[in-house]
Amino acid sequence: MGDAALSAILPDQTHDHFMRDMHSPSEQDYIQQLSIDCVIFGYQDSQLSVLVPKLNFKGDFWALPSGFIYQNEGIDEAARRILETRTGIKDIYLEQFRVFGNAPRSNITFLERLIQLNEDTLGDQRFNRREFDWITRRFVSIGYYALVDISKVVPQKTEIDESIDWYPVRALPAMIMDHAEMVQSALHTLQLNLDEKLIAFNLLPELFTMRELQELYESIFDRAFPRNNFQKKILDLNVLERLEKKFTGAANKAPFLYRFRRENV
Amino acid sequence: MGDAALSAILPDQTHDHFMRDMHSPSEQDYIQQLSIDCVIFGYQDSQLSVLVPKLNFKGDFWALPSGFIYQNEGIDEAARRILETRTGIKDIYLEQFRVFGNAPRSNITFLERLIQLNEDTLGDQRFNRREFDWITRRFVSIGYYALVDISKVVPQKTEIDESIDWYPVRALPAMIMDHAEMVQSALHTLQLNLDEKLIAFNLLPELFTMRELQELYESIFDRAFPRNNFQKKILDLNVLERLEKKFTGAANKAPFLYRFRRENV
Repeated sequence: MGDAALSAILPDQTHDHFMRDMHSPSEQDYIQQLSIDCVIFGYQDSQLSVLVPKLNFKGDFWALPSGFIYQNEGIDEAARRILETRTGIKDIYLEQFRVFGNAPRSNITFLERLIQLNEDTLGDQRFNRREFDWITRRFVSIGYYALVDISKVVPQKTEIDESIDWYPVRALPAMIMDHAEMVQSALHTLQLNLDEKLIAFNLLPELFTMRELQELYESIFDRAFPRNNFQKKILDLNVLERLEKKFTGAANKAPFLYRFRRENV
Repeated sequence: MGDAALSAILPDQTHDHFMRDMHSPSEQDYIQQLSIDCVIFGYQDSQLSVLVPKLNFKGDFWALPSGFIYQNEGIDEAARRILETRTGIKDIYLEQFRVFGNAPRSNITFLERLIQLNEDTLGDQRFNRREFDWITRRFVSIGYYALVDISKVVPQKTEIDESIDWYPVRALPAMIMDHAEMVQSALHTLQLNLDEKLIAFNLLPELFTMRELQELYESIFDRAFPRNNFQKKILDLNVLERLEKKFTGAANKAPFLYRFRRENV
């Protein structure tokens, strides 16, 4: 968990607004001590980035988009709800990658530092320790990742964000708690599963060149692939259909166009 | 969750014994609505099996080894504790594969059927509904899988098991709740990650032939691999060291021996 908990310690006015609009977290509605954190990878212009909100508190805190699970809501459903809230698009392909559940995993240290830095605006009267006990307990968090086409996303701030932006996956800002580790773990899973999930991620235009596909792999693995090896590896996956050459004016240099086989889509 | 919940509805005498020896589950000790289920794959004689306890109740119920997470215990730690209890060996390589958390996922239907079938031994006076309310709520369960050498394992019954045995992965008995789906999901993860986890699983003798390695793959994927393709694929992983030929008397037919490269172990 990260930013979801913070809606509970907002200054009064914002908090009221938040409750009306978004159903502020309360103890009874959710499964206790369980949260979801989302690593939303974005791809555009051969670059791999992550969507990260900056919290609207003093101290420069970045936290992965997160949330809790309603008692009557499936975990995948909860993750889709969080992702839709943050990207504005439905039907995102997303998948669990790992559960983070070390024994000392708790928000308490982070929340105390945040409250200390923001004493003037949060004040004692606004932070009712008993009311938010449940938020400061140990949390087990289920990590989900998604990979989206950045051009299709309109990033959404929530009440507790100062901003929300795409950051290069290899140059992230300072993340709270274990969120930097979560991104690394999600990236590793993405690399492991890329061959199998290639079609589901739906990142390329309907027709694409081998070079465009190679650039996608290179941005995710952060290394160059020798061209011939790459082409062989991909064709061996047996998911591509080769079409006519792309028209570029110089026919002999034109690259072939590919699309994913229909039976695989 | 599966068998762990059942210790709470045992007949009195067995229950007392269980509490002394194994710390019977109670509401305060554990993270609520969160459990762990373990798919323990075993490999022996080129066969892939799963370790499954049969519950000591009328009705022929098989349930994956399972348990809860103590408030002061990491989730990996909890999974190792459960695995050690059931296999008698420490230092098992194990890994999360998926979280099961559909909204209607609850033990209540299964427990009610079990109580109905076992009324004569369980009786109303022994099943205090209020005390076990927490067990019948919706549970989110973290699935872990392990792959062990069957010859090194001494399967351990607990108080609530009639028996515990290895069953062929493709001929499992009738499993409770979504446990059959859990096994399928674990098997899929094992197949996806086998190349990467090959050394960690530690299933082969120190020196082995290409044929022995191929048999391991064939048992996990349940299909034949063409010999030349398999050998190329494995050598491309770059984790093997080729040693002298195995002495069989007929030198020209002797297979090479391999071992995993030391820097990878």
